[in-house]
Amino acid sequence: MPRIAAFGEVMMRLQVPGYETLIQSSRLEYSFSGSGVNVTAALAKYGHTGALITTLPETPVGEAAIAYLRKLGVDTSLISRGGKYLGMYFLENGFGARPGRVTYTDRLSSSFNTAEASEYDMQALAAKVDVLHLCGITLAMNEGVREQMKQLAVEVKRAGGKVVFDCNYRPALWGTDGYTKARPHYEEMLELADIALINEKDARYILGIGAGDYDRITQLKQVIPEVVERFGVRTAAGTQREINADHTHSLTGYICHEGTFVFSGKLTFPVYDRIGAGDVFASAIIHGELQQYPHQQTINMAVAAAMLAHTTPGDTALFSESEVLRALSDHTLDVER
Amino acid sequence: MPRIAAFGEVMMRLQVPGYETLIQSSRLEYSFSGSGVNVTAALAKYGHTGALITTLPETPVGEAAIAYLRKLGVDTSLISRGGKYLGMYFLENGFGARPGRVTYTDRLSSSFNTAEASEYDMQALAAKVDVLHLCGITLAMNEGVREQMKQLAVEVKRAGGKVVFDCNYRPALWGTDGYTKARPHYEEMLELADIALINEKDARYILGIGAGDYDRITQLKQVIPEVVERFGVRTAAGTQREINADHTHSLTGYICHEGTFVFSGKLTFPVYDRIGAGDVFASAIIHGELQQYPHQQTINMAVAAAMLAHTTPGDTALFSESEVLRALSDHTLDVER
Amino acid sequence: MPRIAAFGEVMMRLQVPGYETLIQSSRLEYSFSGSGVNVTAALAKYGHTGALITTLPETPVGEAAIAYLRKLGVDTSLISRGGKYLGMYFLENGFGARPGRVTYTDRLSSSFNTAEASEYDMQALAAKVDVLHLCGITLAMNEGVREQMKQLAVEVKRAGGKVVFDCNYRPALWGTDGYTKARPHYEEMLELADIALINEKDARYILGIGAGDYDRITQLKQVIPEVVERFGVRTAAGTQREINADHTHSLTGYICHEGTFVFSGKLTFPVYDRIGAGDVFASAIIHGELQQYPHQQTINMAVAAAMLAHTTPGDTALFSESEVLRALSDHTLDVER
Amino acid sequence: MPRIAAFGEVMMRLQVPGYETLIQSSRLEYSFSGSGVNVTAALAKYGHTGALITTLPETPVGEAAIAYLRKLGVDTSLISRGGKYLGMYFLENGFGARPGRVTYTDRLSSSFNTAEASEYDMQALAAKVDVLHLCGITLAMNEGVREQMKQLAVEVKRAGGKVVFDCNYRPALWGTDGYTKARPHYEEMLELADIALINEKDARYILGIGAGDYDRITQLKQVIPEVVERFGVRTAAGTQREINADHTHSLTGYICHEGTFVFSGKLTFPVYDRIGAGDVFASAIIHGELQQYPHQQTINMAVAAAMLAHTTPGDTALFSESEVLRALSDHTLDVER
Amino acid sequence: MPRIAAFGEVMMRLQVPGYETLIQSSRLEYSFSGSGVNVTAALAKYGHTGALITTLPETPVGEAAIAYLRKLGVDTSLISRGGKYLGMYFLENGFGARPGRVTYTDRLSSSFNTAEASEYDMQALAAKVDVLHLCGITLAMNEGVREQMKQLAVEVKRAGGKVVFDCNYRPALWGTDGYTKARPHYEEMLELADIALINEKDARYILGIGAGDYDRITQLKQVIPEVVERFGVRTAAGTQREINADHTHSLTGYICHEGTFVFSGKLTFPVYDRIGAGDVFASAIIHGELQQYPHQQTINMAVAAAMLAHTTPGDTALFSESEVLRALSDHTLDVER
Amino acid sequence: MPRIAAFGEVMMRLQVPGYETLIQSSRLEYSFSGSGVNVTAALAKYGHTGALITTLPETPVGEAAIAYLRKLGVDTSLISRGGKYLGMYFLENGFGARPGRVTYTDRLSSSFNTAEASEYDMQALAAKVDVLHLCGITLAMNEGVREQMKQLAVEVKRAGGKVVFDCNYRPALWGTDGYTKARPHYEEMLELADIALINEKDARYILGIGAGDYDRITQLKQVIPEVVERFGVRTAAGTQREINADHTHSLTGYICHEGTFVFSGKLTFPVYDRIGAGDVFASAIIHGELQQYPHQQTINMAVAAAMLAHTTPGDTALFSESEVLRALSDHTLDVER
Repeated sequence: MPRIAAFGEVMMRLQVPGYETLIQSSRLEYSFSGSGVNVTAALAKYGHTGALITTLPETPVGEAAIAYLRKLGVDTSLISRGGKYLGMYFLENGFGARPGRVTYTDRLSSSFNTAEASEYDMQALAAKVDVLHLCGITLAMNEGVREQMKQLAVEVKRAGGKVVFDCNYRPALWGTDGYTKARPHYEEMLELADIALINEKDARYILGIGAGDYDRITQLKQVIPEVVERFGVRTAAGTQREINADHTHSLTGYICHEGTFVFSGKLTFPVYDRIGAGDVFASAIIHGELQQYPHQQTINMAVAAAMLAHTTPGDTALFSESEVLRALSDHTLDVER
Repeated sequence: MPRIAAFGEVMMRLQVPGYETLIQSSRLEYSFSGSGVNVTAALAKYGHTGALITTLPETPVGEAAIAYLRKLGVDTSLISRGGKYLGMYFLENGFGARPGRVTYTDRLSSSFNTAEASEYDMQALAAKVDVLHLCGITLAMNEGVREQMKQLAVEVKRAGGKVVFDCNYRPALWGTDGYTKARPHYEEMLELADIALINEKDARYILGIGAGDYDRITQLKQVIPEVVERFGVRTAAGTQREINADHTHSLTGYICHEGTFVFSGKLTFPVYDRIGAGDVFASAIIHGELQQYPHQQTINMAVAAAMLAHTTPGDTALFSESEVLRALSDHTLDVER
Repeated sequence: MPRIAAFGEVMMRLQVPGYETLIQSSRLEYSFSGSGVNVTAALAKYGHTGALITTLPETPVGEAAIAYLRKLGVDTSLISRGGKYLGMYFLENGFGARPGRVTYTDRLSSSFNTAEASEYDMQALAAKVDVLHLCGITLAMNEGVREQMKQLAVEVKRAGGKVVFDCNYRPALWGTDGYTKARPHYEEMLELADIALINEKDARYILGIGAGDYDRITQLKQVIPEVVERFGVRTAAGTQREINADHTHSLTGYICHEGTFVFSGKLTFPVYDRIGAGDVFASAIIHGELQQYPHQQTINMAVAAAMLAHTTPGDTALFSESEVLRALSDHTLDVER
Repeated sequence: MPRIAAFGEVMMRLQVPGYETLIQSSRLEYSFSGSGVNVTAALAKYGHTGALITTLPETPVGEAAIAYLRKLGVDTSLISRGGKYLGMYFLENGFGARPGRVTYTDRLSSSFNTAEASEYDMQALAAKVDVLHLCGITLAMNEGVREQMKQLAVEVKRAGGKVVFDCNYRPALWGTDGYTKARPHYEEMLELADIALINEKDARYILGIGAGDYDRITQLKQVIPEVVERFGVRTAAGTQREINADHTHSLTGYICHEGTFVFSGKLTFPVYDRIGAGDVFASAIIHGELQQYPHQQTINMAVAAAMLAHTTPGDTALFSESEVLRALSDHTLDVER
Repeated sequence: MPRIAAFGEVMMRLQVPGYETLIQSSRLEYSFSGSGVNVTAALAKYGHTGALITTLPETPVGEAAIAYLRKLGVDTSLISRGGKYLGMYFLENGFGARPGRVTYTDRLSSSFNTAEASEYDMQALAAKVDVLHLCGITLAMNEGVREQMKQLAVEVKRAGGKVVFDCNYRPALWGTDGYTKARPHYEEMLELADIALINEKDARYILGIGAGDYDRITQLKQVIPEVVERFGVRTAAGTQREINADHTHSLTGYICHEGTFVFSGKLTFPVYDRIGAGDVFASAIIHGELQQYPHQQTINMAVAAAMLAHTTPGDTALFSESEVLRALSDHTLDVER
Repeated sequence: MPRIAAFGEVMMRLQVPGYETLIQSSRLEYSFSGSGVNVTAALAKYGHTGALITTLPETPVGEAAIAYLRKLGVDTSLISRGGKYLGMYFLENGFGARPGRVTYTDRLSSSFNTAEASEYDMQALAAKVDVLHLCGITLAMNEGVREQMKQLAVEVKRAGGKVVFDCNYRPALWGTDGYTKARPHYEEMLELADIALINEKDARYILGIGAGDYDRITQLKQVIPEVVERFGVRTAAGTQREINADHTHSLTGYICHEGTFVFSGKLTFPVYDRIGAGDVFASAIIHGELQQYPHQQTINMAVAAAMLAHTTPGDTALFSESEVLRALSDHTLDVER
């Protein structure tokens, strides 16, 4: 099986249980996640080796993070130790008309974001990796981290590996004039990417591709082929999310492989925990591509996997391929007993 | 008031709280239940004496089970003590597209399933019982238990009592060729039953009655009268469940009394805990029959009681007759204050 | 900013967590609330000074109540200490077809309900208050408390302040022939009120105004102007609640200011905790009136605030004006991150 | 086996978990107890029938109390239903130098304390009872309850039964001049008692017996025989408690049977939950007397049972006779596995 | 009553409940504390006005901190809002031979530690303050904060107020050559201080006063008078802590007022939560000085208050003066009921 | 570093939190442990590779066990999957005079105890193992498991590895005439063992060595050399436990290496969780032997590690070598901050 690695930050998620706010409660539930964590854990559950490349502090908090990653099935042997802190975020759940809220601590002082490039032996790492996953959240951190992720991508490609890039644009991380600041970096990453997770909004606003006032599917069909062509991405994939009046969500997925579009049906479902669902979608795309499943099957599975991810507490969803397939065939199942 | 007893196993339910899985969590909530427990507790709440006939170990776990049954209002004076273990099952709640999961421990080594027939004084027990409840789950256990339940049913009938049999077919318990293995035992039990809880699927697959590719109501009308006639059952009753796209459930109930069908309206409702709802339906049927309520009233109440059972944490639902009647007349009530 | 005070009882809310009943559980979550608490806390969150006028015992329970009120942002400097007890209520959450249940302890023996009028220096209090909030729950307590609230209202008016009266009729508190007993007291309060929270049912049954078998909106348009005119109320406001088959609730709000009606749109939403939502509506009406917002804006905000209150654990909802405005413009928001 | 009943109030215990105070926490754990509850539950565990005679409200709280008593093994068939409230108390645990705190709600308005004598059929109750347990807490309530307990004691004696009276003097319940107010009632109860739980402080301060400034054991030997003789009590028993500098407690027990003293050794132990330990001591005395154990054995067991009661969460301790005997022989045991 | 303010950081305490480590658990309990928080809350409980001067972020975490401070009784009207983060620390409880562990997040990026001096109007603040509390933890932060605390102290003195300085030296915060780095700042603070909390170790290692290898009391008597004289401190006070083999702690307190020593007795007690006890000691010293209690009474109360602080969950202990006096007179009390 | 493996069962530990019993509570905390788990996890923490050889079911419970082992740092790559069940035990904590209680479920039907020898490729396993840990609990299971453990030990020795055998005699597992039944198997295991964990009781009762009525140390010195010689064990080690009147425990450890005894000092400490401490002692002995530490150092560390294990919730203690050394040098440490 191919060896997959992700380069990215581990964050501590501090969630107020139930539907209380930080003012009302006095309790938190914690776990450790991050885009790279979610992707490597999901791929490990599909049977691959999923290793995380990151830096964690040598403190009780860092130890707890590593133990948690091991529990998720993530290969922790490529993790560096150093620095002092772990990025953290507080999560207050929303309900109905009240949206959930995320409050970050100072992630720029984290071990990952303050690590020197010299702490990673990029060539040695590249030699252990067949597929490398990178994401736009990491790209938003700081110049050092950006440099590291580009270097590692270059080394992986040089060693014959593949690169997956998930655009994952977060406005809050780029600040004012974010799209302008982000564009050159996104362009650089897409040049390196074999597989890109991207939607029509990313293409329009970050890359400045496309313009018309069309419906979203039409926009998608217009802009994605241009992205694919301009940057030489082999496979592009993504979802369109709708939030319905009854607070269910709907997802439709697409894959555009060498210019040909395949769409999933639209799945509509209630939401327990929305965070991390995009990473589960990305993981299933990577899995389908590596297994060379037909694209229609891959996109159907990826959307079903993302749907299941919305039903799971925590950022990281752990479903086997057979569970995804069953949810795809029937998502109104009775208790299994 | 008639004295009602159930012969059946007590199981310990070990439920992961909230929506986490066994991998994610570290906590369980436990309670004690079983088909017989649920039926006798529900009937006790309607004002009857509900006694359980079973065997429990003399261990702290067995003591906890008995205390719990007392709390439910179950008469524990007919319980034997012996053996070493209690059957248990783990429950992971589902959410939306993710079904709940039940994992059993080794219930065949439980005190109930290893008890010798000689541990029960069948005649003495029959003398204390006006109505005996038995169910298809117990029938699936092993030859010893099957023999005991048949013996007890025979003694109760001999002493002038009535027998209720709930088909409750569970494929996982009978294994391969389950229907074939189960049929002779089900036939024997139905011969003994005054009241049978049965649906068209039970009749078709276990008893081999009916065949056509009709809708379920038509099937029901076709097969149930044949069951009633062939086995001399006085009252047959059951539900048809639909699971809707929005994850609500719908139930329609029927009673077939001496060949005449009565149907409830279809009730649609959100589900909190689905386990044990069938036992609550059966209990209300027994209650209505013993109180000689009009069949239309009984079936309406039984479906409303089953609906309420879906709103209650735990297997065992405890509603008074007046609460059932209120839910029947209006199930979109505001807070009572 | 105007100084707002409420005269009313603080109650301890003892809630069974999750969906278990008092029989099933062994745990409670407690908080402190009451109509006056909810109104002053909500107004404090909008930037006003919100002070509570009440009496609390000098016991650990009384201390806990005061600390809790401080946490809510309520000004506790006008609270008297004395008496022995705090009123309490147990809350069992409902689910779907199973309504929630409230069980009171003996609130008539509470410090508030047994305080002597002499414990309050009505003139001194009135001097510190620009707007006084009173409600029909307090009016139902006993003759002493009724006398105190009328006295205080008179003093506030004398000192140039305004009086808000929320009809809040609770049948269980007035007992048999409740409407007849209540009418003279309600009439007296409405005579004193500048702003009245009232719906068509209050007008018809308490005040005996209106009669026909019309739909509720027509009834409202018929009876409210008559109330306004007869009692000289400047602004009347209220909501009409519908409970839908899927257990969502719908609210439509109205303001009738000097005879002119303004209606909000109808908002439909899922409900997490319904208790206290009426107080949040009242608070937003008071806020809008004090800020002299256009009536259409005030009623829209008040209904949106009430909707948000249904999404919040506990009786007391704490939303800033900007959160209310955002919920008004879009109530299917994604996680904020 | 003799049928034992206790006449007394059921209270709801609302305990802050861990070592937080009511100001700090937001959670409570509840159970139901009372002197009569503790005694009948403990005796049921020793194999007797233990029935409670009390009045409970027909509310969800009253239902929860009855279910809880059933779980404890208490016979609930003699309980009347009526009134509106249940007495309650809050418990904040102490730690080391910080004492625990109990805060009562208004127990005088409870169903038990407001029940009319006519609600109990005293003769019918007496006919079902061989031994009646009464206690000084009940005696402190109000004139009605006092009358009822005396009446019931008289009827039980008339029917040939025995009366146990536990002095259990609580200063807070009698208020100023408590000893003077209490004396006639205590004298009346002791006249009726066959077994009295009493210590030298009770005798000195309530009954005014003895005077000198001797050590506590000398006092005991001086005053108890006088009590026994004056009131015709057959067996007197009690404990002397010391609280040590390391926060362990020590207990020494005595029985004075027809003038002859027997003392237990002094047991010293750490304390988890001190409330209800006196009732467990009393229960073991009753059990020993009913089983006609040698007095030395009875007093040893009673002190060991009381020691075990200090190790148990909640007011009500449930230990079998064999567990008490084992603790008596060795109280530094390893895990049993 | 004098108005007391403290200038210092608010930290979020994230505690693993029970005795699990961060690796084992998944839950945290949070509260907000800090030396200034503890001191102002304790003084508020003694009846003073206790205001905190700090900077908190305008985030849900900052809002939760302010609500929590209000609950503690702290006056929050002098708090500035700005910056982005709150300092935090994780606490894993120790047990027996296993010490507790504290892990900090990046507190240097907190709102307090990044606030500009211009955000505080030092003169306006000084005008509202009679007594200012400062501590060595704040002094260790960074040059900006150090400058601010000195400035504020100067302004308070200029306005006629008093300054309290608690040495509170934390080696981890000053790093290598800590004592050398710290000395000039400590000297500057002691010059400004009217009351200093200091022990012999502070004097020896930070200030370089005293040398001999004497026992700790002798050292104290040697070095403190020199500190008092050199820096013109009016009152010095402190404790000596011993940790005993049975894991109890012992404290002995001293006050040196204008050269005269007074010592408390040594109190020995079990420990529930050791953090914050020093602040409670300081608060009682401040209270005693402001109330002009005899020094012997003040030091006795301060040590008893510190002992009680060890029995309380959380950093911040809330005891009234009467509770402290009772603990002083008898610290082996039974449950209060 | 040497590769260490343990052959043994994984059990699910179901613990009632706090000090309630199974009757009182409704909650459990679960973890996964076993002698082999504890040993490999502890050795992994010391830096070795610790792999478990066992069989686990392919169920959600089996998955949860594997994830938990990964979290502990155990190498799970040698685990077989098959069978249906996991052994489980309930744990009720004791307090003071009340001992803890362990109640087992049917462990003989577990995947481990029903696995066929053919499921393990003994030679392949032996090739991956430098040191094999086995224990007397496994030896007590059934003939199949006994055969497997002997076979594996033989293969490991044949491949040049070492065998560690921990006597760990549990009377309840061997039943009547346990010592007689056990002896031949113990003898066989000791013949294979390079390192044996054994105490004087094991030698006397299982092996029938030694007789006199001497104190325990004298007995030890008498019997261990005989064991060592008779079975050719290179290193024997063990502890003597005393349970003190104040419920602290004391441990003294010994190593007998090639006939020479070394003893640790006696450590006395309070106990939080006693289960698994013996495995931690064994792990430290193995670590010391593999690192070729002086025997005095090894035994001191092993007893200190065992002491720390008593302070940790759960069976499995995770301490680094430096934490053990620090506890050894000072076990009355303050909070580390």
